[in-house]
Amino acid sequence: MRVLVIHGPNLNLLGDREPEIYGTQSLDDVNDLIETSADDLGLKVTCAQYNGEGQIVDALHGARSTADAVVINPGAYAHYSYAIADAIKSIGIPTIEVHLSNIHARDEFRRTSVTAAACLGTVCGFGPQSYVLALHAAAKILRK
Amino acid sequence: MRVLVIHGPNLNLLGDREPEIYGTQSLDDVNDLIETSADDLGLKVTCAQYNGEGQIVDALHGARSTADAVVINPGAYAHYSYAIADAIKSIGIPTIEVHLSNIHARDEFRRTSVTAAACLGTVCGFGPQSYVLALHAAAKILRK
Amino acid sequence: MRVLVIHGPNLNLLGDREPEIYGTQSLDDVNDLIETSADDLGLKVTCAQYNGEGQIVDALHGARSTADAVVINPGAYAHYSYAIADAIKSIGIPTIEVHLSNIHARDEFRRTSVTAAACLGTVCGFGPQSYVLALHAAAKILRK
Amino acid sequence: MRVLVIHGPNLNLLGDREPEIYGTQSLDDVNDLIETSADDLGLKVTCAQYNGEGQIVDALHGARSTADAVVINPGAYAHYSYAIADAIKSIGIPTIEVHLSNIHARDEFRRTSVTAAACLGTVCGFGPQSYVLALHAAAKILRK
Amino acid sequence: MRVLVIHGPNLNLLGDREPEIYGTQSLDDVNDLIETSADDLGLKVTCAQYNGEGQIVDALHGARSTADAVVINPGAYAHYSYAIADAIKSIGIPTIEVHLSNIHARDEFRRTSVTAAACLGTVCGFGPQSYVLALHAAAKILRK
Amino acid sequence: MRVLVIHGPNLNLLGDREPEIYGTQSLDDVNDLIETSADDLGLKVTCAQYNGEGQIVDALHGARSTADAVVINPGAYAHYSYAIADAIKSIGIPTIEVHLSNIHARDEFRRTSVTAAACLGTVCGFGPQSYVLALHAAAKILRK
Amino acid sequence: MRVLVIHGPNLNLLGDREPEIYGTQSLDDVNDLIETSADDLGLKVTCAQYNGEGQIVDALHGARSTADAVVINPGAYAHYSYAIADAIKSIGIPTIEVHLSNIHARDEFRRTSVTAAACLGTVCGFGPQSYVLALHAAAKILRK
Amino acid sequence: MRVLVIHGPNLNLLGDREPEIYGTQSLDDVNDLIETSADDLGLKVTCAQYNGEGQIVDALHGARSTADAVVINPGAYAHYSYAIADAIKSIGIPTIEVHLSNIHARDEFRRTSVTAAACLGTVCGFGPQSYVLALHAAAKILRK
Amino acid sequence: MRVLVIHGPNLNLLGDREPEIYGTQSLDDVNDLIETSADDLGLKVTCAQYNGEGQIVDALHGARSTADAVVINPGAYAHYSYAIADAIKSIGIPTIEVHLSNIHARDEFRRTSVTAAACLGTVCGFGPQSYVLALHAAAKILRK
Amino acid sequence: MRVLVIHGPNLNLLGDREPEIYGTQSLDDVNDLIETSADDLGLKVTCAQYNGEGQIVDALHGARSTADAVVINPGAYAHYSYAIADAIKSIGIPTIEVHLSNIHARDEFRRTSVTAAACLGTVCGFGPQSYVLALHAAAKILRK
Amino acid sequence: MRVLVIHGPNLNLLGDREPEIYGTQSLDDVNDLIETSADDLGLKVTCAQYNGEGQIVDALHGARSTADAVVINPGAYAHYSYAIADAIKSIGIPTIEVHLSNIHARDEFRRTSVTAAACLGTVCGFGPQSYVLALHAAAKILRK
Amino acid sequence: MRVLVIHGPNLNLLGDREPEIYGTQSLDDVNDLIETSADDLGLKVTCAQYNGEGQIVDALHGARSTADAVVINPGAYAHYSYAIADAIKSIGIPTIEVHLSNIHARDEFRRTSVTAAACLGTVCGFGPQSYVLALHAAAKILRK
Repeated sequence: MRVLVIHGPNLNLLGDREPEIYGTQSLDDVNDLIETSADDLGLKVTCAQYNGEGQIVDALHGARSTADAVVINPGAYAHYSYAIADAIKSIGIPTIEVHLSNIHARDEFRRTSVTAAACLGTVCGFGPQSYVLALHAAAKILRK
Repeated sequence: MRVLVIHGPNLNLLGDREPEIYGTQSLDDVNDLIETSADDLGLKVTCAQYNGEGQIVDALHGARSTADAVVINPGAYAHYSYAIADAIKSIGIPTIEVHLSNIHARDEFRRTSVTAAACLGTVCGFGPQSYVLALHAAAKILRK
Repeated sequence: MRVLVIHGPNLNLLGDREPEIYGTQSLDDVNDLIETSADDLGLKVTCAQYNGEGQIVDALHGARSTADAVVINPGAYAHYSYAIADAIKSIGIPTIEVHLSNIHARDEFRRTSVTAAACLGTVCGFGPQSYVLALHAAAKILRK
Repeated sequence: MRVLVIHGPNLNLLGDREPEIYGTQSLDDVNDLIETSADDLGLKVTCAQYNGEGQIVDALHGARSTADAVVINPGAYAHYSYAIADAIKSIGIPTIEVHLSNIHARDEFRRTSVTAAACLGTVCGFGPQSYVLALHAAAKILRK
Repeated sequence: MRVLVIHGPNLNLLGDREPEIYGTQSLDDVNDLIETSADDLGLKVTCAQYNGEGQIVDALHGARSTADAVVINPGAYAHYSYAIADAIKSIGIPTIEVHLSNIHARDEFRRTSVTAAACLGTVCGFGPQSYVLALHAAAKILRK
Repeated sequence: MRVLVIHGPNLNLLGDREPEIYGTQSLDDVNDLIETSADDLGLKVTCAQYNGEGQIVDALHGARSTADAVVINPGAYAHYSYAIADAIKSIGIPTIEVHLSNIHARDEFRRTSVTAAACLGTVCGFGPQSYVLALHAAAKILRK
Repeated sequence: MRVLVIHGPNLNLLGDREPEIYGTQSLDDVNDLIETSADDLGLKVTCAQYNGEGQIVDALHGARSTADAVVINPGAYAHYSYAIADAIKSIGIPTIEVHLSNIHARDEFRRTSVTAAACLGTVCGFGPQSYVLALHAAAKILRK
Repeated sequence: MRVLVIHGPNLNLLGDREPEIYGTQSLDDVNDLIETSADDLGLKVTCAQYNGEGQIVDALHGARSTADAVVINPGAYAHYSYAIADAIKSIGIPTIEVHLSNIHARDEFRRTSVTAAACLGTVCGFGPQSYVLALHAAAKILRK
Repeated sequence: MRVLVIHGPNLNLLGDREPEIYGTQSLDDVNDLIETSADDLGLKVTCAQYNGEGQIVDALHGARSTADAVVINPGAYAHYSYAIADAIKSIGIPTIEVHLSNIHARDEFRRTSVTAAACLGTVCGFGPQSYVLALHAAAKILRK
Repeated sequence: MRVLVIHGPNLNLLGDREPEIYGTQSLDDVNDLIETSADDLGLKVTCAQYNGEGQIVDALHGARSTADAVVINPGAYAHYSYAIADAIKSIGIPTIEVHLSNIHARDEFRRTSVTAAACLGTVCGFGPQSYVLALHAAAKILRK
Repeated sequence: MRVLVIHGPNLNLLGDREPEIYGTQSLDDVNDLIETSADDLGLKVTCAQYNGEGQIVDALHGARSTADAVVINPGAYAHYSYAIADAIKSIGIPTIEVHLSNIHARDEFRRTSVTAAACLGTVCGFGPQSYVLALHAAAKILRK
Repeated sequence: MRVLVIHGPNLNLLGDREPEIYGTQSLDDVNDLIETSADDLGLKVTCAQYNGEGQIVDALHGARSTADAVVINPGAYAHYSYAIADAIKSIGIPTIEVHLSNIHARDEFRRTSVTAAACLGTVCGFGPQSYVLALHAAAKILRK
C-alpha cells in the first residue's frame, strides 16, 4: 500500500517560516517523521514538495499509477485552487487534506478550503502530527 | 490521562439517521470503538451525548476538574454556537473537534465551524475513525 | 394515527405576548382548538411546549416511538437552529412546520426558515388556524 | 362567498413537468379537486391559469369585483415579481399563497417569496392538497 | 412636440390603492392634470397604462414613430426589469422616469432603479406633480 | 427535424439598437441567415420574436408539439426570468441559449444567466453567427 | 414664501469641473437661473454653497427661521452623510434633493442616496434645470 | 422594586476565563458588588446564571411575576438568539443589556446584538461596573 | 478630575427634533442635568456641541490638555467617521460613547458604531440619563 | 489560417475523469475530432494541454507569432485566473472560450468566467462539439 | 514648480499617536524632511494640515491657483470621503496619495481607498519617506 | 546591497500590451531604467520576469541567499495569490510591491491586493517610475 504525500507552496521553508505558527521543524524533519510513521503502519510513502499549482496537478495525476492514497497539504492553494480540487476529483484515489495550523482559527480567507471539498476528510491544527494522523486514516481506509 | 468525549445533538440516533451520510454504526458501537482505542493509547475516556447547547456548555465546564483533554463533535452547533466556542476557550483544556462526515463537502452552512476556531485542531470525514484519530492526537499532545 | 404537536419558545406566553401580532388566545385555547380539530379528523393528538432547543430535539426524537406525524411551530428557532433541522431529518417522520404569523411579511431574519427545509411543507399566517390546516394536511398524508 | 384561484406560469404543464417534483396530476385534475373541495366548504370557486406577469396583475385587479378571496400559486414569479406583490396589496382582498412543492427545501432563489409578503398567509409542500388547505383557510377567514 | 406618458403596473388602481402612500386621486384625475399641464407647455400628450412588462416594451418601441419624448412611471418594474431598461436604451428618445412616492424613503428594494439608469433623469416623491415636473423637463429638453 | 428560434425582448429593433454592441443587421437579415443555415443543415426552422415574458413561456410550451429543438435568445430576461427557466425545464426539449454579444464582458448583471442553467449549452459573443453555431449544435444533438 | 438653496461640495467649481458630466455653466450662471425662475414663481430664494458637512448641517438648522422650504444638492455627501440626513429630518421643513447628473446611471456608490430618504422628493439628471424643477415643486407644496 | 439579574453562558467561570478580557473577579464577587449597589439604590436584586438558551427564556418568563426590571448579560447568545430576543419582547418588563467587555471593539460577530434590539438600552465595556450602571438606569426608570 | 462632554451633529436641536425618539428636553436641559450629576460625583465638566466632523476631531485633540476623560455622543458620525475613531485612539484619554436612543433597535445602519470601537465602553438607550451613567463610569475609572 | 487550441488543467484525464459530466472520449479522441473539423474548415490547428497557469500564459504569448486565432478551454482557471485573462487581452488575437459542460448549470463558482470577459465569445455545454463550434466561429471571424 | 502637501485628520498628533504604527517623528519633523527633500528636487513646497473634510476640499480647490501638483495624505478620509475624491477630480492637477503605514496590511476598511481612485498614483507603507517618494514622483511628472 | 526585481505575468509583453494603460516602453527599456537608477543609488539589482505563480514563489525563496530586498510587480497575481503572499511573509526580506497603473482606479477586483498585505509598502500608478521609487525606498530601508 503506497501513499503519496504532497507538500504545497512554501512548505520547503518549514522551520524558518513564521515559526510561531508553523513550528521549528524543517521539512526534512517532518518527512522523517512521516516515513517512520508510515513504516510502523506498513505503508510505503513517497514525499514531494511543489510550489507550482500546475506541478501539484501533475503530481496528483501521476499518483494514479503510483499510489493507493494521497495525503496533501495544499498550503495557500487550499483556499482558491479549483484546478487542484478538480484534479483530486479526477484521479479517483482516496485523498486526505492536512494542515499544520488550525485553519479555522486564522485569517478569514483561510477558514474555507475548496480543495478539502474534493477530499475524503481533513486533519488540521496538530503541526507535523497532522500528517501522522492522516497516514493512520489512510491505512484504515486502504485496509477496509 | 483522562479524555472527555462529547457527542452533540442528534448523535444518539446514529445508525438510524441518514445512514448514507453518517454510516450504520450506532452510538454504542462508536463508543465501544472509542473505548478500545483509548485503552490501546493508555487513555481513560468518558463518553457523553447531549442535545442541548447549554448542556454541552455545562459538560465542557465540568471537564475542568475531570479531564485533561476534550474531544467534541458539536454536530450542527459547530456552525452557530458561539456559546460553545466561548466555553471551549474558557476552560483552558486542549480540545479537538471531530466530525463524522467531511463538512467541507456538504451544505454551504456546514463549511465553516465557529467552534473549531476555539479548538486546537479538527479531524473530519473519516466516520467513527475521526474520533480515533482525535484520541491519537490527544495522546500525543498530553504526552508532550 | 397519532400526531405530536410541538410549540417552540415563548409560545407559552400566547395571548399575553404582542397580541397585535400573535392574537389574544392563550396556548390552552389553541390546544383546545387543536384537540377538537384532531378529533374531527380522527387523529390522536399530543401537545407540548418547550423553550429549550435541546428539549425540542429530544421531543422530536421521542416522536419516533409515539407519533406518526409531527406538527411543529419552532418559533424563533426556525431561523437558525440547524440542530432542530437535523433532528427533523433524523427521525424520518412526516413533519409539518407551522407559524401563527406570516413570516414572509415580518423582519428580514424571519423570512427564511432553516427548519422548514427539513419538513414536508409549511403553513403560516393564519393564527391558530395554521395548526388546524397542518392537521388536515397530516391526516391526508397519513391516509394516503 | 367567491374564491378566485390563480395558477401562475408553467402550471398548465402540470403532470408532464418534472413529475418527481410536481407530481403526475394534470392541472385539470387539480382544478377538479379544488372544485370538489370548494363545494364541500360552500365556496364558489373560479380557476384560471396565466403565464404572463401582466395577466396575473390584471386577474388580481379583476378579483376586486368578482371574488371575496384569492388563492394564488405565483410559480416562479413568487421570487421576483414586485409587480404582482404590489397588485395583491392594491386590491385589498384576503389573498393566500400556495406552492405545490416545499419552496424552503429547493434552490436558494426559491426560499424567499416577495409575493408572500403581500399575502395573509402561505401553504406549501403538500402538492395539490396545498390548494385545498388554502380553501379551508379562506373559508375560515371569510366566515369570521 | 409629442410626449408619450406610460403608466406601469397597478397604476390603474390609483386612488383606491394604499392611499396613504399613493394619494386619493384616480388615474383619470392624474391624466387630466397631465393633459392640462401639457397644454400649458404646448406639448401634445398621449397617456397609456399597462400592467405587462412586454406591453411596456412594445409601447416604448411604438414611441419611436409617435413621440418626441417619453415620460414613464415603471412602477415596480423599475426595480428589476432590465428588459424595459434595454427598451429605453434601444429607442433613442429622451425618456424621463417618474414615481409618485419618494422611492429613496421606502422598502430597501425600491431604493435602486435599473430603468432610471437608461433614462435622462428622474423625478420622484411629489405625487401627481411628479408627472407635471417631468413634462416641464421634457419641454425644456425638446426645445433646446 | 424542426427547430424553433425564439428572439426575446428588444431584438425586433436589431440594427437600430445600440449598433456598436449589437451590429447593424436587422432581425430580418438575421432570420434570413438563420433560414439559409438551417437549410444547409437540413433543419426546418421557425423564427419568432416576443417582448413579453409570458409570451415566451407560451412559445416554449407550444414547442412541445411543433419542434424537436429550441434555440432561444432570451435577451435581458436571461438574467432574471425564473419563469422562462422553469418553462425550458418543463418542456423536455433540447434548448440552446444564444446571445449576440459576449455577456461575460458587459455589465455585472449580464454576467450570469438563470435561463442558461436550464439549457443544454450556450453560445455567445459572435453576433448573428451565434445563432448559426447554435443550429449546428442542434443538428448534431438531434442526429445523435 | 422663502426657499433656501444649498449647493454641496465642489459645486463652486461648476463649469470647470468635469464639464462632460456637469456642463459648462458656472455656479453663478446656475444661481442666476435659479433666481429668475424663483421670481417667475413668486418665491424668494437664497443660494449658498458649502464644502463642509458640518456647514451644511448648520445651514439646514438655520433654515428653521429663515426659509419655508429647502432645495439641496448634497453632492457626494448624498451617498454617505447620515449627519445631513438627520439634519433634514430634524428641521421639519419640506426639503427637495437635486442632482445635476442622473445618479442612477453613474458609479455604483452614486446610485443610492441616504439624504434623499429624509427629503420629500428628488429631481436628478436635468443639469441646472433640476433646480428649476425643484423650485416648481416647492412652489406647489408651499401653496397647497 | 425588584430587579432580576441574569448572567448568560460561561459567566460562571468569571475570573478564570480569559482574564485579560473579562477581568479577575469571580461571579460571586460580581454578585456581591451588584447586591451592595442594589442596596444603595433601594432595589431588591436576585442574581442567577444559566448556560442554556431555553433556561434563560424560562427565567425571563418567570420575571413577569417576580421582578419589575431585568438586567441581562446574554453573553454569546446576544449575537444570535432570536428566541431570547422574543422572550424579552414578550414579557413587557423594562430590560437592560449589559456586557463586561466593549463588544464594539472585538470580533466582527460580537459587534451586533440581536437581543439588545429588544431591550430598553445597553451598557458595555466597563467590566463589573456595567452591571452597576445598569442598576442605576433601572432605578431611574422604575422611579419615573 | 475634568470631563469633556462632546455633543455631535444635530444635538443642538434636541427637544425640537423627532421628540418621539429623542425626547422633549432641550440641550440646555440636558447640560444642566449633566452639570448637576457631575457636581454630585465631584467631577468638573465642560459641555460642547459641534456639527462638523473636523470640529469634533479638533475638540478631541484639545482634550489632551484640558480633560481627564471624554464622554462623547457622536450622533450619526458614530456610524461612519473613521476620522473621529482615529482621533479617539490618538488622544489616549479614556473615552465613553453615549447615545440617547437604543441604536440596536433602530435603522440597520445605526446598529454598528465605528467610533465605539475606539472607546472604553458605551451607554445607550436611556435618553439624557445615558450621559449621567457615562459620568458615573468616568468617575469610577478616574478614581481607580 | 492557423488556430491554436489550448486545453487547460485536468483535461489530459478526459474520458477517465467524472465521465457523467465530461463524457467518455479521451483527449486524443477530442483532438482527432478537432483536427478533422479543422481540415473541413480549411484551418491549420495545433492542440496543446497544460496544467499550469503560467504555462497557459506562456502558450498564449507564443500564439502571437504562430496563430491567427485561439480556442481555449481554461478549465477551472476560467473562474479565478486574472493572469490568463490579462494574457488573452495582451496578445490581441481573437480568442474563443470553450467548455465541455454547461457551466451555468453547475456549482455556483463555475457560473462566472473571468477569462471569458477577455474573449470574443464562448461556447459551452456541447461536450467535444463545443470545440468544433468554436472552430466554425474562428473560421468565420478569420475570413471576414 | 510648486507642490502643495496636505496632511489629513489626526496627523497633527504625529509622534504622539500610536507610535508603533505611525512612528515617533512629529509633524514638524516630517515637514522638515519634506522641505529638505523638495529643495533637493528643486520644488517649492507648502505644507498644511486639516482635520475637517470640507477644509481639505477647500485646500484642494485653492491649489488650482497656487500649485502644480498635490501630495495628499487623506488619513481616514481616504476610506469614505467621496467629497474629497470629487474635489481631486475637479481640480485637474496631478495628485498623489500618500500613507505612512501600509494600508493593505491593516483593518479591512483601510484596504480600499476611494480617494486614491481619483489620484495619479499612491505610495504607502514607508513612514515619512512615503512623502519623499511622492515628491520624487511629482518632480518626474512635472518635468515630463 | 542587492535588490531582486521580480516582474509578474504578462509583463514580458510590456509596450505591446494595452499601451493606453501600460505605456509604450518594453520590459527591456524598463529594466534599463531600473539598472541606471540602481547604479545611481549604489544598489546591485537583478531583474527577472515570470508568468508562473510557482516560479515567483521559487524566485522569492531564492532571494533569501541572493538579495537584501525585493521589489515585486505581481501583476494579476496581486489580487488572488495567497501562495505568493505567504512566500513574501516566509522569506523575511523587506519587500516592496509595485504596479505600473493605479490599481485603485481600475476594475473592482484590481482595487485590493492580497500580496501587498505581506509587503512593507506599495507604489503604484507612476508607470516605470514606480520601480524607481521602490528602489529609492529600498535604498532608504537598507541603509537605516
